[in-house]
Amino acid sequence: MTHTPGLVVTGASGRMGQMLIRMIGENDKMRLVGAVERKGHPWVGQDIGTAMGGPALGVTVTDEAVDAFAKAQGIVDFTTPEATLEFAALAAQARAVHVIGTTGMTEEQIAALEPAARHAVIIRSGNMSLGVNLLAQLTRKIAEALDEDFDVEIVESHHHHKVDAPSGTALMFGEAAAAGRGVQLRDVADRGRDGITGARQKGHIGFSAIRGGDIVGEHDVMFLAPGERVILRHIATDRSVFARGALKAAIWGQGRAPGIYSMADVLGL
Amino acid sequence: MTHTPGLVVTGASGRMGQMLIRMIGENDKMRLVGAVERKGHPWVGQDIGTAMGGPALGVTVTDEAVDAFAKAQGIVDFTTPEATLEFAALAAQARAVHVIGTTGMTEEQIAALEPAARHAVIIRSGNMSLGVNLLAQLTRKIAEALDEDFDVEIVESHHHHKVDAPSGTALMFGEAAAAGRGVQLRDVADRGRDGITGARQKGHIGFSAIRGGDIVGEHDVMFLAPGERVILRHIATDRSVFARGALKAAIWGQGRAPGIYSMADVLGL
Amino acid sequence: MTHTPGLVVTGASGRMGQMLIRMIGENDKMRLVGAVERKGHPWVGQDIGTAMGGPALGVTVTDEAVDAFAKAQGIVDFTTPEATLEFAALAAQARAVHVIGTTGMTEEQIAALEPAARHAVIIRSGNMSLGVNLLAQLTRKIAEALDEDFDVEIVESHHHHKVDAPSGTALMFGEAAAAGRGVQLRDVADRGRDGITGARQKGHIGFSAIRGGDIVGEHDVMFLAPGERVILRHIATDRSVFARGALKAAIWGQGRAPGIYSMADVLGL
Amino acid sequence: MTHTPGLVVTGASGRMGQMLIRMIGENDKMRLVGAVERKGHPWVGQDIGTAMGGPALGVTVTDEAVDAFAKAQGIVDFTTPEATLEFAALAAQARAVHVIGTTGMTEEQIAALEPAARHAVIIRSGNMSLGVNLLAQLTRKIAEALDEDFDVEIVESHHHHKVDAPSGTALMFGEAAAAGRGVQLRDVADRGRDGITGARQKGHIGFSAIRGGDIVGEHDVMFLAPGERVILRHIATDRSVFARGALKAAIWGQGRAPGIYSMADVLGL
Repeated sequence: MTHTPGLVVTGASGRMGQMLIRMIGENDKMRLVGAVERKGHPWVGQDIGTAMGGPALGVTVTDEAVDAFAKAQGIVDFTTPEATLEFAALAAQARAVHVIGTTGMTEEQIAALEPAARHAVIIRSGNMSLGVNLLAQLTRKIAEALDEDFDVEIVESHHHHKVDAPSGTALMFGEAAAAGRGVQLRDVADRGRDGITGARQKGHIGFSAIRGGDIVGEHDVMFLAPGERVILRHIATDRSVFARGALKAAIWGQGRAPGIYSMADVLGL
Repeated sequence: MTHTPGLVVTGASGRMGQMLIRMIGENDKMRLVGAVERKGHPWVGQDIGTAMGGPALGVTVTDEAVDAFAKAQGIVDFTTPEATLEFAALAAQARAVHVIGTTGMTEEQIAALEPAARHAVIIRSGNMSLGVNLLAQLTRKIAEALDEDFDVEIVESHHHHKVDAPSGTALMFGEAAAAGRGVQLRDVADRGRDGITGARQKGHIGFSAIRGGDIVGEHDVMFLAPGERVILRHIATDRSVFARGALKAAIWGQGRAPGIYSMADVLGL
Repeated sequence: MTHTPGLVVTGASGRMGQMLIRMIGENDKMRLVGAVERKGHPWVGQDIGTAMGGPALGVTVTDEAVDAFAKAQGIVDFTTPEATLEFAALAAQARAVHVIGTTGMTEEQIAALEPAARHAVIIRSGNMSLGVNLLAQLTRKIAEALDEDFDVEIVESHHHHKVDAPSGTALMFGEAAAAGRGVQLRDVADRGRDGITGARQKGHIGFSAIRGGDIVGEHDVMFLAPGERVILRHIATDRSVFARGALKAAIWGQGRAPGIYSMADVLGL
Repeated sequence: MTHTPGLVVTGASGRMGQMLIRMIGENDKMRLVGAVERKGHPWVGQDIGTAMGGPALGVTVTDEAVDAFAKAQGIVDFTTPEATLEFAALAAQARAVHVIGTTGMTEEQIAALEPAARHAVIIRSGNMSLGVNLLAQLTRKIAEALDEDFDVEIVESHHHHKVDAPSGTALMFGEAAAAGRGVQLRDVADRGRDGITGARQKGHIGFSAIRGGDIVGEHDVMFLAPGERVILRHIATDRSVFARGALKAAIWGQGRAPGIYSMADVLGL
């Protein structure tokens, strides 16, 4: 009998899904017990390892999440907001830790996770990397320490396939800076600066989005004052940093009290 | 009798005006023969040196540009588009070289310089610095050499007083990249990226504007492809680089045939 | 009778000295009561304001520090290590707060400040700017939070007149990173990397020094791991940030218990 | 009968070797006709595709380069300087284009290629990427256009396994800058700056090497003057850019006159 947590990967055929499956296979603190895809996906019914073009892994891809979750201690989920809400309810029934790396969730969708969180552990973050979550904490601290002479600007760069701007991670840094100053981000965000904008308003937080090539994700949080600048920069060059954070969270969540946690909790920041 | 060109500075009380006057005083290849301000300005009638808080320079600030220009070989002009158009006509009458560092001129305003340019030398550039004009040339060459796998993004940073975005210099780089690819900038410019933008379109040129602190002017021209990036960066940390370029142009223009020239001509690029 | 602290500036004719004198004049929370220069300096005996080319300030430059210090509550000192050690003894006699912005002090010279610190307040930092001291604190925290998979590299850029490398501030960041990891910087510093160096050793801290133009001071503290990088960047564009920090320290030190303090204490970090 | 050039990859089991083999397989303008490894390597005698963990490719790994080269039109070679010298002689016998991406060759080793180049085409570059070779050309032009007020500094970053500093590519940029100024790099190179260096000498070219994480290769060529900076930056995030350049060179070289060419020739710069 093994005591390592059994994990299910949702969206198993996707870029993040396949990466998670490979990384679970290389990590002896966890094991793969399920792989979920949407109904009608060609991989359903096949061995996930074979479908990925490698050796068989003994796990058949299924479109019945409820069955897959029943034997799992953790669900690792980088899918869509709608799918994630369904998975949250099923994960709560199974009392499995639900790690949510899905991006683009609205405030309403995040609030809709609460019923599930009364029964099970949910860990959700706009960005699962260690470094990003560390810098978000520091952004808040710096925004507290420096006064409004320091203009805050957040600049992010992503590959040319990305369809939205600014990135969820940029907004996460913006929220951290706003929290440090005791204001609401929506009241001070300068987005899409173009044309005759007038002079910059004190206390505002600016956002810029660069798109090109295959950039995985780069973020600068800038504090700009006369004579002096302080900049926090995060560069992700490999999506494995997001997978690594999610798997770390799945382990960390075992045995915790029900509730919604963030990567800051996982990292003990 | 001296053979060094006599220069008039317009907008003499402004930040650029005062810098030009100081730099002319330190340069033995030129001399100050006039200082122009708008009607009603408190400095009119005073010695320009005294008005600037230093020793007298023997030049009285005047609001009669026509008189000041009559004895000049060059006019150095960092004012407003409207004032610049008036000065162009007067400079042409005086057959003086008109160096235009004024920013924010529309295409129509630039076209309106042509009658003056039939009689006298006009040198105009969106940015008077040596480095910027060099990089604009290189931007064009790189855009020619690299194919459309390289996405072009232009990012600029300026102080929090700046009222427009993107900067004139950023647009100048954009024009250079578009020219290198044989397209019109207005057909491919992505400005003010925000919200659900969809994936980036191949061949487009993106612009981002960062505002904060007292940044004099920084520009990045990025060519972003899968696996590889080429970036040209210009950083101005002191407005004297613009004044130095303008004074170099005023000397270069002496004895040239009438016409409109750019800093690329001055630099022999 | 005024209650604002009276300050003496040492090295009054230097670039930092003159800047301090101007900033004290503009600040109504403090007043200038003395200006010290070395014996034989041409300014000794002149009014400091006149010597600086402006209006008289009613303070005569002296080479007798002991007399100047007697009527002061604070000494602001950006000179040389040797001069600073002498001033420390005199400041302690006068029970005046001694703010030391002097760079290049050895560990022995810093230790030699201790007798003076038994009688008076000394505030010393390798860099007086708000942002640098904030980032030094964060460097320590990040070094604690991130494991040795993150290689630490410190890169600094300064003007071409600078005679030593790496900068004192770079070493200050290196000490902070080493402290966060519980090691001694001297055991892990990689300086002057050149030639066949072999692979980088885990746990080492690398230093690079860029020299050129008139760069005031730029520092990057990099944490570099596979797939991910975290970078703290500080840019100083105007020496006034150092003067501002020193004057803030001179006020903060009034009424404190004797001892050696740092800018981290002043900032309450 | 096919007219696409047949290529041999040397060092077939290495990271670059495997990448080249995969990219040749995906490119219908070329085909793989040989794979060479050193004597005693376990892959010798196996099908190269099978050895790489994929489907068979019908090409057996051999340690007899002379036989493999006999049926080839091009040799793509990222090995060691010593191996490359041997391969150059064999490629010349076979009249095959020899593309050399091997790094770390000394001036003597490069000179030793000349006999082979009398009989066959050799294309060699310190860095095979399109962007790097373009920037090297521009570095030379900028160094010609800007005077010695602009201090040149070259900064490179690579992964923590790299054993030498500065990188061959950094030296290539340094050579380009020196050529633009009409000086020898060895007379002006500042390497491994550390300790009391004295002020920077005008006309010198500085080098800095950052090592950490898995950085593929990043280079900055900086021109730093008072008030202004011009920077060329190249970032490689995927080794495929070197392979792509090498394969482009192998095609370009078909039918050329014997001689040593560079990537600048291939790119028509």
